[in-house]
Amino acid sequence: MSTVSNKGIIFKAVPEGLPNSNVHFEVVHHKIDIKNLKLGENDFILRNLYLSLDPYVRLTMKESHIDPVMPSQAIGHVLSGIGVSEVVKSNNPNLKVGDLVYGLIGWEEYTHIKTDAKKINDIHFKNINYHKKLLKEVPLSYQISLLQLSGLTPYGSLMALGKPKAGETIYISCAAGATGHLVGQIAKIKGLKVVGSTGSDEKVDFLLNELKFDAAFNYKKVDLDKTLSELCPNGIDIYFENVGGKTLEVVLNHCNRFARIPVCGMISQYNITNQKEKYGVKNLDSIIHKSICVHGFLAMDFIGSQVEKDFETDMLEWVKSGKIICKENVIEGIENAGKAFTDMLVGNSVGKSIVKIADYYNYL
Amino acid sequence: MSTVSNKGIIFKAVPEGLPNSNVHFEVVHHKIDIKNLKLGENDFILRNLYLSLDPYVRLTMKESHIDPVMPSQAIGHVLSGIGVSEVVKSNNPNLKVGDLVYGLIGWEEYTHIKTDAKKINDIHFKNINYHKKLLKEVPLSYQISLLQLSGLTPYGSLMALGKPKAGETIYISCAAGATGHLVGQIAKIKGLKVVGSTGSDEKVDFLLNELKFDAAFNYKKVDLDKTLSELCPNGIDIYFENVGGKTLEVVLNHCNRFARIPVCGMISQYNITNQKEKYGVKNLDSIIHKSICVHGFLAMDFIGSQVEKDFETDMLEWVKSGKIICKENVIEGIENAGKAFTDMLVGNSVGKSIVKIADYYNYL
Repeated sequence: MSTVSNKGIIFKAVPEGLPNSNVHFEVVHHKIDIKNLKLGENDFILRNLYLSLDPYVRLTMKESHIDPVMPSQAIGHVLSGIGVSEVVKSNNPNLKVGDLVYGLIGWEEYTHIKTDAKKINDIHFKNINYHKKLLKEVPLSYQISLLQLSGLTPYGSLMALGKPKAGETIYISCAAGATGHLVGQIAKIKGLKVVGSTGSDEKVDFLLNELKFDAAFNYKKVDLDKTLSELCPNGIDIYFENVGGKTLEVVLNHCNRFARIPVCGMISQYNITNQKEKYGVKNLDSIIHKSICVHGFLAMDFIGSQVEKDFETDMLEWVKSGKIICKENVIEGIENAGKAFTDMLVGNSVGKSIVKIADYYNYL
Repeated sequence: MSTVSNKGIIFKAVPEGLPNSNVHFEVVHHKIDIKNLKLGENDFILRNLYLSLDPYVRLTMKESHIDPVMPSQAIGHVLSGIGVSEVVKSNNPNLKVGDLVYGLIGWEEYTHIKTDAKKINDIHFKNINYHKKLLKEVPLSYQISLLQLSGLTPYGSLMALGKPKAGETIYISCAAGATGHLVGQIAKIKGLKVVGSTGSDEKVDFLLNELKFDAAFNYKKVDLDKTLSELCPNGIDIYFENVGGKTLEVVLNHCNRFARIPVCGMISQYNITNQKEKYGVKNLDSIIHKSICVHGFLAMDFIGSQVEKDFETDMLEWVKSGKIICKENVIEGIENAGKAFTDMLVGNSVGKSIVKIADYYNYL
């Protein structure tokens, strides 16, 4: 192994509204000489296998400023995102060549991690070697979906904030999205009536026929208020919020007393940069007499909590027993990540969008 | 005791917007012949001492329809509200003449309670005879403020939903109101920095000098955004929401990560009956990346919970030791209840508005 291609995507310009893959991203054809590259103490080099495309990355595509919760991407540099990789060279005492890791990588083929930390947990990497034994049952790509943050997001928020009880009704917007389609499946496991909305008939079919939702509809084709009256005659106990704006306003009118609204996203408002053009929600007073709880969250909120421990146990069991699946939208080649990212943001994808950067051979 | 005056206030018409005491209320001069009035099994007659004026009553002044959470007042009948009374005649096995009770009474001098229930708890009455021993230390009127629902509302919501931690900053709107001025005092006891806003300089003085808030301001005279930047330089951890609308929008921008917003009221929106004229809150997406919890409630939500038990212990101790006071706005005479109610709704009162209907002599 000597000098090899290290294609990547750099962050070229801050988008207003929806990013354009030709304007705000740029594919760069770097090279990397793994053999001769000198590593600092604790450094390591990753061969990236899978990259997760997550909506949160849009929020990091901003003018650089200090934000400890969500640091911005650096203009002119390779974008960062969550990925699964194998170690190909290591000066870190806790990593050896061939180890599988999960963590924050570059949108590129190889990432050189420069760090002072001996413990990879300190820089938010996880050793996932245990997956090597699971490979016959569980695809490795599930490490950037169901088994890690993308699974903890729906599980943690539904369990800790949604507090589902069997027999209740949950309505999920963006129900065919990466998080929504998992929330719906977990809610089914927990015995809820699951109603979802999405933006195409194809995705409605997916929800009804593949995921066995109790009801699903194409929000572009119906009157939401009327449809919720029909599909949720007993009212809504949990609204899993991905959309915001007018949708939230309508749903509040259908909420039962003590309804819970975990707020995962408000995608209808993300690309409106002029504050004045955003939708103003007028019926928030219904929160009072219905004692509704509206609770925003980031996936990281659940890290280290009891719900994360429960998640690790439950999710692996559900995956192995086939009780839950992750619908993957796999894009081949890092050079296609920019366009795939934009497609995901506008809802042109079903399930979890993943870039497959390279095959994982090592276990063979 | 034979036929005596039984003045009362009847609900004459459903108001749009703010009620007018001359239009929507009517003083009636009934009589009651206590001696000769025949009581059904379990019935009793109350001599009403104090009536609590609560904003929730505005929400019950609506066209009659079935609403188990908040039943409407009946047009042409005496209004109902929470009061403290003494029993003057009883056919109920669990009540004797001279007993003090707390519960839902008429806006009138005497109320004949007709019931099938032997247990007065079943019709939401409480025996408060224990207060007879407290009368030297604690005014009886505290039974419709600090020691019952009007005390449980601030205590329960602040403790269960606000989850205060010493050193945090709380901002309270309507801070000189019945609930707000108690929330602030409890927050001080819990070691928080307490900032409040209200609608007059006199009330600002009250908050600063009588209640020892850390900061207070007249919202009519300042730019809220700028003032919160100055008074809450470390951001807001708890926003105790009484106002809604534009205020909520501004406060959201000052909230810290993991801020809690107990929603007690949105009084700026109550009297706008045309939904289109209500204020639309446009920055709800800030709930997500700050992991904010917005939680509506009614005082009754805390009844029967652990927080109610804690409340009973803490509040009596705080009252006796002078750690907390209830600012009372006492109106004499039931005939003045209508106007006093409207004054309270527009913020022309400080503290808890109470109608003193009669003196309590029995303990002498």
